[in-house]
Amino acid sequence: MPINGSTATATANPAEPVEVPRGLAGVVVTETELGDVRGHEGFYHYRQYSAVELAQSRGFEDVWHLMFYGELPDAAQRAAFAERTATLRHLPAEVRDALPVIARASALSGPLSGLRTALSLFGASKGFRPVYDIDGDRRRADALAASAVVPTLLTALYRLGQGLEPVEPRDDLSYASNYLYMLTGSQPDAARARAIEQYLISTIDHGFNASTFTARVITSTGADVAACLVGAVGALSGPLHGGAPSRALDTLDAIGTRDRIDSWIRERVLAGDRIMGFGHPVYRTEDPRSRMLRGIARQFGGEMVEFAVEVERHVEAILAELKPGRELHTNVEFYAGVVMELCGLPREMFTPTFAAARVVGWSANILEQARDSKIIRPAARYVGPAAPQAVPADD
Amino acid sequence: MPINGSTATATANPAEPVEVPRGLAGVVVTETELGDVRGHEGFYHYRQYSAVELAQSRGFEDVWHLMFYGELPDAAQRAAFAERTATLRHLPAEVRDALPVIARASALSGPLSGLRTALSLFGASKGFRPVYDIDGDRRRADALAASAVVPTLLTALYRLGQGLEPVEPRDDLSYASNYLYMLTGSQPDAARARAIEQYLISTIDHGFNASTFTARVITSTGADVAACLVGAVGALSGPLHGGAPSRALDTLDAIGTRDRIDSWIRERVLAGDRIMGFGHPVYRTEDPRSRMLRGIARQFGGEMVEFAVEVERHVEAILAELKPGRELHTNVEFYAGVVMELCGLPREMFTPTFAAARVVGWSANILEQARDSKIIRPAARYVGPAAPQAVPADD
Repeated sequence: MPINGSTATATANPAEPVEVPRGLAGVVVTETELGDVRGHEGFYHYRQYSAVELAQSRGFEDVWHLMFYGELPDAAQRAAFAERTATLRHLPAEVRDALPVIARASALSGPLSGLRTALSLFGASKGFRPVYDIDGDRRRADALAASAVVPTLLTALYRLGQGLEPVEPRDDLSYASNYLYMLTGSQPDAARARAIEQYLISTIDHGFNASTFTARVITSTGADVAACLVGAVGALSGPLHGGAPSRALDTLDAIGTRDRIDSWIRERVLAGDRIMGFGHPVYRTEDPRSRMLRGIARQFGGEMVEFAVEVERHVEAILAELKPGRELHTNVEFYAGVVMELCGLPREMFTPTFAAARVVGWSANILEQARDSKIIRPAARYVGPAAPQAVPADD
Repeated sequence: MPINGSTATATANPAEPVEVPRGLAGVVVTETELGDVRGHEGFYHYRQYSAVELAQSRGFEDVWHLMFYGELPDAAQRAAFAERTATLRHLPAEVRDALPVIARASALSGPLSGLRTALSLFGASKGFRPVYDIDGDRRRADALAASAVVPTLLTALYRLGQGLEPVEPRDDLSYASNYLYMLTGSQPDAARARAIEQYLISTIDHGFNASTFTARVITSTGADVAACLVGAVGALSGPLHGGAPSRALDTLDAIGTRDRIDSWIRERVLAGDRIMGFGHPVYRTEDPRSRMLRGIARQFGGEMVEFAVEVERHVEAILAELKPGRELHTNVEFYAGVVMELCGLPREMFTPTFAAARVVGWSANILEQARDSKIIRPAARYVGPAAPQAVPADD
């Protein structure tokens, strides 16, 4: 806790402003033990493990445990954690009762704005308290509770929006399997449940993206876990951050047939349009998530997958020709869209499904940030007219 | 709009990480025309005008107009703006109907968590769209609508929490007067309405504080105005940021009588406790807001005000003695609490009242940030065990 708040910052707040690249690109805001993205190697990791290797060899709950507790669970820990998180899937009555109103109000703004409201209400109803006023165990309990209900909230809001009754969570299913179950009302087959699980694991965390950073800035004020997560959901709802997996599929639809690939893409690239699903701010190589998800998609096979692979090949070749040296490849969104479509997820739920994974990463970041007690408060340079000027008399 | 998002950042994302002070203190994140805080001069301004001078000579709506449109209104603009914002005070039926549930759920977490939920619901119900998908006029209309309903939401949630019926806004009252009216159900006298108005004007904006920065980070993803404001409300709810005006008054209560001032304060300072209402991360002088609010409080006079002045004098003297060279003075919270108490605001509404002013500053910052198209995405340094390590086989 701050010893007269002012004093801690007195020395850290230099008289001379510090200049940094626009958008804070490359600016090291904090240290973390949660993982890293190595853009030039095409590699990212959660704690000391390759995220892709985790997705290929472990279940979602194992990686959730790793992010929250710092280590993969043993058999007994796995069973206890699965049981605890399954119990936490159920909504408090007052939140469940409010969902129809929230779903109706969010019809225009989409499922992430519904989640934003519902998660805020959930945190309030659980009486979440400021992170600096509670100990690490209580913080982790709050973060666990919030993470565990996100799939329940999202699927209930989606179904209500479709005029369907929400489906109660099933405690005997895994996080991923239960997510698909609550969405569709039927238990998914093993291949689809595993495909979505691998997607979810691979998107739990990914460096200091804007939503994760948002969660950490809010945490640094000492706000409660819901305040931090709700801010992060808001950031993820921004099209520049979480908004594209369905649009990448829309691109496939718009191209339509193999013979139109070249002309469609060339036209757009030459017009300066962005080709959705290609390019990443950090990776200078193939996105490792993209590679993994392409492999998963190919296990399903079928015409859509083959078409996607062909579009990828053409786009990369055209981008290499028209923007040489840029190393533009498919990003996570391209094959994530394909995999989610194969698993029967409706397109409007693609980004919300991303949120159902990333909430675990946000939570781990909140728990880590809460161990620091320094508020994040940067500066801006005033560039308006010279001040002060006398306030003119009322007109 | 980004031209293949990846490319814009390719050059701006340096291979070498950039080192900055902890908490981003003094780090210039952006340029702004909205104002500045000059910590060493004890001066802050909104655009080119002294904020304190604005508070002393203008109404809230004038300054709101200044922040949103870049200039003080003339008589015709003032009338049109007052009429427009008064109309916007009324809640959509679906939001009004949801408030009892939100108030009940927020009983444990407090009014700011209720505002967080209600404002999120409001934005969704209005169909707010991503800021980069709409033009400046539409963005400003969204921000105006959201700012205008904050007092209505806050006072309704407060009254519902007290078992009272919400009071409908009155279009013939000013923003400040209507706020007190909706809270208490009676029209405030002119002195109290003006005192609160001056407080509200003086807290509209104050540099790149954590909630303002949160709003701008979320804006940089292209999220809608409600997502940005809801994140900011969450940051303001953190005790290190917005949480202290009522606690400063609690300090006065705890001291109780003049003869106990010295021993009470000394004991706490020597124990390393923070004295609420003293010290600021930026000001190295008296806080100009504090000076103005002290003046307002003294116009009311009375025992509580005299006691506050005496406590201030003693605390500053003791802090100067025990922490020489630190320049610890009262901050905005100390006399803000006194003024709000004099105006009959309940203590749990002190920080929410702050939010009713700051929402205008957040909004102006969102509108400014939305004219930039660069996502704010810093970096973190991984300090965990060397990666990758092989994922162990399942236990």
